[in-house]
Amino acid sequence: MEIAMIQEKIVPLEQLEPAYLDRGIFFGDGVYEVVRSYNGKIFALDKHLQRFIRSLTEIGIKTLDIVQVRTQIERAFEAASISNAKIYFHITRGSGFRDHVGTDDLKPNFFLTITELPNVTEEKTKGIAVSTHPDWRWKRCDIKSLNLLPNVLARQDAARKSCAEAIFVDDAGLITEGAGSAFFAIIGKTLQTTPLTANILPSITRKYIIKAAKNVGLQALEKSLTPQQAASANELFIAVTTKDIVPVVRFDDKVIGDGKPGGYTKLLIQEFQKIVR
Amino acid sequence: MEIAMIQEKIVPLEQLEPAYLDRGIFFGDGVYEVVRSYNGKIFALDKHLQRFIRSLTEIGIKTLDIVQVRTQIERAFEAASISNAKIYFHITRGSGFRDHVGTDDLKPNFFLTITELPNVTEEKTKGIAVSTHPDWRWKRCDIKSLNLLPNVLARQDAARKSCAEAIFVDDAGLITEGAGSAFFAIIGKTLQTTPLTANILPSITRKYIIKAAKNVGLQALEKSLTPQQAASANELFIAVTTKDIVPVVRFDDKVIGDGKPGGYTKLLIQEFQKIVR
Repeated sequence: MEIAMIQEKIVPLEQLEPAYLDRGIFFGDGVYEVVRSYNGKIFALDKHLQRFIRSLTEIGIKTLDIVQVRTQIERAFEAASISNAKIYFHITRGSGFRDHVGTDDLKPNFFLTITELPNVTEEKTKGIAVSTHPDWRWKRCDIKSLNLLPNVLARQDAARKSCAEAIFVDDAGLITEGAGSAFFAIIGKTLQTTPLTANILPSITRKYIIKAAKNVGLQALEKSLTPQQAASANELFIAVTTKDIVPVVRFDDKVIGDGKPGGYTKLLIQEFQKIVR
Repeated sequence: MEIAMIQEKIVPLEQLEPAYLDRGIFFGDGVYEVVRSYNGKIFALDKHLQRFIRSLTEIGIKTLDIVQVRTQIERAFEAASISNAKIYFHITRGSGFRDHVGTDDLKPNFFLTITELPNVTEEKTKGIAVSTHPDWRWKRCDIKSLNLLPNVLARQDAARKSCAEAIFVDDAGLITEGAGSAFFAIIGKTLQTTPLTANILPSITRKYIIKAAKNVGLQALEKSLTPQQAASANELFIAVTTKDIVPVVRFDDKVIGDGKPGGYTKLLIQEFQKIVR
């Protein structure tokens, strides 16, 4: 008899819940997004859904009604009734017996959570420490996929070093991005960050920041940095949907500036508040 | 209220089944193995468990009693009572709210399936076609992790080309391995395959084949091949636990040898039968 075993319990295979046969778990065969709300309003949902569609298309999940996905997100957000919410959602190719190729009748699985955003005031006012980690990720980081084990391992390594984020460094010795964030340096009057290629996520927060740079007197430069260049920058920060801009005050063993969030970074945080208002 | 949504159904977050919060699905934060039985006996379980422990250790899942895992596999195998069985099992870091680092109280999740092995007589007697695909995988393919989206995409690409396996080619233009198999070429009296590094899985079937090579008059050479070298080889085959040796008779558009399984490949298939007997 074909069976499954969950922890120590044997179950006939045909009685197994579809959740255990999700291709998300067998292969990470799915993509995700994280959006947030500011004061009861979801921020940049259109842009996130556009990126989500791109991710789905790139991995060939096409059977999906994106209008329905949007409606579901909005319905869930209304039901949760959380003013400053973190909205996570993923779609996988479906549930089925483990087979790489998969069958034509797979129906995508949708999953979402809405939670309270943690308070990040301290991180934003004091800044965080980050540590570098080799970029072990796959070659299509432009796709926001569920294959996130290298990100987990890098974040765990960072946590052991009392750092809040890991910054990936590729084989060429260049910074790509954070394990869950975009990475920025301010050198003089230049705001520098990795250019968009297949090896980083087209971050939506990044896009807003680059646009806002000139408002604070910075010129944006999309050019990769080495860890040495980052460590000697005037200011550093990371950007992520759930926290927008978080100052970085330590990079590996190097204190950045005077060890406090930099002036331009604070101005950009203020600019971002105008955008999301 | 913090909520989840499964397909179109809203569920309070605290009532969510742990299966939906498995770090396997959020991150692919787990490792797996596939073993098989020949005539009612599991083959090379020790070696697979050794590799499994290594994978678990490499990603820092340490809270696990491997003796218990072995006992569970054997108990499940007995319950299934399938003579030629495919035994798949994985362990993830546990279930919990989505957070890369994870909490210290995570308890690993064990999941296993035992199914009938499909009949591969036709594949083995006629041989298969394979197609090349860029190796988009992460840099730690020596860990048998659940991050398998690049393997899925490559296999789907192969299927569209009526091929049974995708052969990965890295940025240096060298073959690493198949999307779910080791890859071998026979050139003259040399049996050539990729050396073991962090970019391929230490295949157990591969090890048996390299050892058996001399019994059929072949000398093993662990050296990477280019696709051009593979396409002009005398014989090609792939090796995978569930099918042991499968001859390759077409490589991209190139017919291998006379388009039938090669003589040395057939001898190695016979040798393998002696090993598993």
